Amino acid sequence: MYFKVSKSVFYNALSTVSRAISSFSPLPAFSGIKIEAKLDHLVLTGSDSDISIQTTIHSDNEETLQINDTGSIVIEAKYILEIVRKIDSDELELEILDGTQTKISGKTAEFKINGMNSMDYPMIDFIRPANNFTINSDILKEIISQTSFATSTSETRPALTGVNFFCEGHTMRCVGTDSYRLAKKVVEIEKELTFNITIPSRNLNEVSKTLEADEEITVAISDKKAQFILKNTVIQTRLIDGVFPDISRLIPLAFDYELEIDTAEILGAIDRASFIKSDGVSVIKLSLDEKACILSSRSQEVGSSTENLSNAVFKGEHLDISFNGRYVFEALKAIRQGKIRFSFCGEMKPFVIQPIEDDSILQLVLPVRTYA
Amino acid sequence: MYFKVSKSVFYNALSTVSRAISSFSPLPAFSGIKIEAKLDHLVLTGSDSDISIQTTIHSDNEETLQINDTGSIVIEAKYILEIVRKIDSDELELEILDGTQTKISGKTAEFKINGMNSMDYPMIDFIRPANNFTINSDILKEIISQTSFATSTSETRPALTGVNFFCEGHTMRCVGTDSYRLAKKVVEIEKELTFNITIPSRNLNEVSKTLEADEEITVAISDKKAQFILKNTVIQTRLIDGVFPDISRLIPLAFDYELEIDTAEILGAIDRASFIKSDGVSVIKLSLDEKACILSSRSQEVGSSTENLSNAVFKGEHLDISFNGRYVFEALKAIRQGKIRFSFCGEMKPFVIQPIEDDSILQLVLPVRTYA
Repeated sequence: MYFKVSKSVFYNALSTVSRAISSFSPLPAFSGIKIEAKLDHLVLTGSDSDISIQTTIHSDNEETLQINDTGSIVIEAKYILEIVRKIDSDELELEILDGTQTKISGKTAEFKINGMNSMDYPMIDFIRPANNFTINSDILKEIISQTSFATSTSETRPALTGVNFFCEGHTMRCVGTDSYRLAKKVVEIEKELTFNITIPSRNLNEVSKTLEADEEITVAISDKKAQFILKNTVIQTRLIDGVFPDISRLIPLAFDYELEIDTAEILGAIDRASFIKSDGVSVIKLSLDEKACILSSRSQEVGSSTENLSNAVFKGEHLDISFNGRYVFEALKAIRQGKIRFSFCGEMKPFVIQPIEDDSILQLVLPVRTYA
Repeated sequence: MYFKVSKSVFYNALSTVSRAISSFSPLPAFSGIKIEAKLDHLVLTGSDSDISIQTTIHSDNEETLQINDTGSIVIEAKYILEIVRKIDSDELELEILDGTQTKISGKTAEFKINGMNSMDYPMIDFIRPANNFTINSDILKEIISQTSFATSTSETRPALTGVNFFCEGHTMRCVGTDSYRLAKKVVEIEKELTFNITIPSRNLNEVSKTLEADEEITVAISDKKAQFILKNTVIQTRLIDGVFPDISRLIPLAFDYELEIDTAEILGAIDRASFIKSDGVSVIKLSLDEKACILSSRSQEVGSSTENLSNAVFKGEHLDISFNGRYVFEALKAIRQGKIRFSFCGEMKPFVIQPIEDDSILQLVLPVRTYA
């Protein structure tokens, strides 16, 4: 194997595939990046078996890539990234000397790195599942940012560690929940499809980081895996086994109380009140009636805060409701829109947060009981 | 106690004194900031007994500070900083309600925080020592950045955890060493003084962060403490007991080999080679003669690097010398100047790094033995 490649092109490709590499991988080969030089393109692969990323560099012109000899090698990700990032030239050469020793050279800097045999790298099946649809990367990023934060980090119920994508007809419903709060986003897709899959949140976040703005992404799914296909890159993730809970009965449909407010106003108030914690949790209380909306927090140890939400508009009888400040804060951050509506059914019933002018997104939060 | 104060003025003052507060302090009161309202000024104090910072806010005009009632309180640093940083107005009020409960109010946000009695805060003696001199803050910052990095982080020899300031006549010699490398900076001061003190590095770095550019600082010293006196702020640090080693015999005076090179060129080369480590240390080797200067590194596990320092100029017989890459990297970063000179006496002798046009700074590094 012997090729010349542009430093910036090679570095970006290495960075992309290294996102799949976890420092906790049990298999030594998975700490490396597999580099394959084909006749007219390079293929780079990174994986931790849970998520795998493969990217291709084409030799469109000599300045990007010039392959003199085909072959393949696996090189420790952290070393190759470090070398390429700091090398003293805009173009570098990579050559297998003998066995697995690999020479990487810039202008005067030259490295001889002990690689690993690519035969020892596990075979990863990148065959594209037949079931697929296209989606704009901005919409996909939005789905991920508006749902994945609400998933569980505990492995006790594995299905809750991922975002569920449920599609019937043209409508795809995306849901993340940790059983204390739930985030739902509904989008229309161009094809008529039926599927019900759950993708690990961690992998979705890596997908999100890899996406450029406003590109067309193909999503291909089987019952074992999902693929996100970008221009030169394929990101492949396993699915989570197990049944995702039926959420249709969780979301109340009729409400007795409504609070309308600017996102920025209530975000600021929760942010100010949240340092007051009891047992590590900041419990925020809303005392709502049509005359005044008061947000407060209190702990025996620290003290208390109160704040009048002067621009809030409330409809309904008097209501006191308390919740985990972080859950509502994260829900509001995910919505990121001007005016929002809180809809309540009662002191101990789950409540709904939605933008006033967009019902494609819905955030549900369970209140907490307080004794004050 | 009851006063009104500008949010930004108060926040900056709280940030300054909070630099002295350590989360590991054994005394609960030291996790707080002491706030004293005098007739026409506020005094804020933070301390961990090792370093103490006191700053004053004067009521020059009503928008800065308006004191209605004198008094004093101690409030947990992290709470008061959080409240003031996020409060919903440009001006805030602070009032002791009863005992130690303290009300802090902005526009509609209001906090009632459990403070601590200021009688429980240790007395800190801020009396200014008689021995003192003035120095420009830029020069003081430079002294600290060029010497403190070379001090030891191990407590086995306490004197090496600080920078030694030794003054005779108008000449102050500032030295940090961890016994493997040494950094020396010499400056002239306006007064004739004699002292020999060692100040903990950690405290000097806090002093450096507090200094503004180009202000006149008074440094006052006794045999127990040093004070750095800024316009509205006094930073006081304990001194390290114990004799600082006599460095005069450590620095060689005559050399057999000389290497002249651009700082950027050798910094880049060391930076590129340093990821190759053996037992966590990157050993860099220079192979020098008048024809070529080669920088290399090698480890059994990772591989090797070599680089020709093409703009280096070497005078002397052939010399191979190896050193801890981090030590030389940090020494070069501290020098931060265009052309530098390495002066060597032999393979296993300490070598000297100095800017070619500035002998006020000197960096000394001990080589390491290699078996290659």
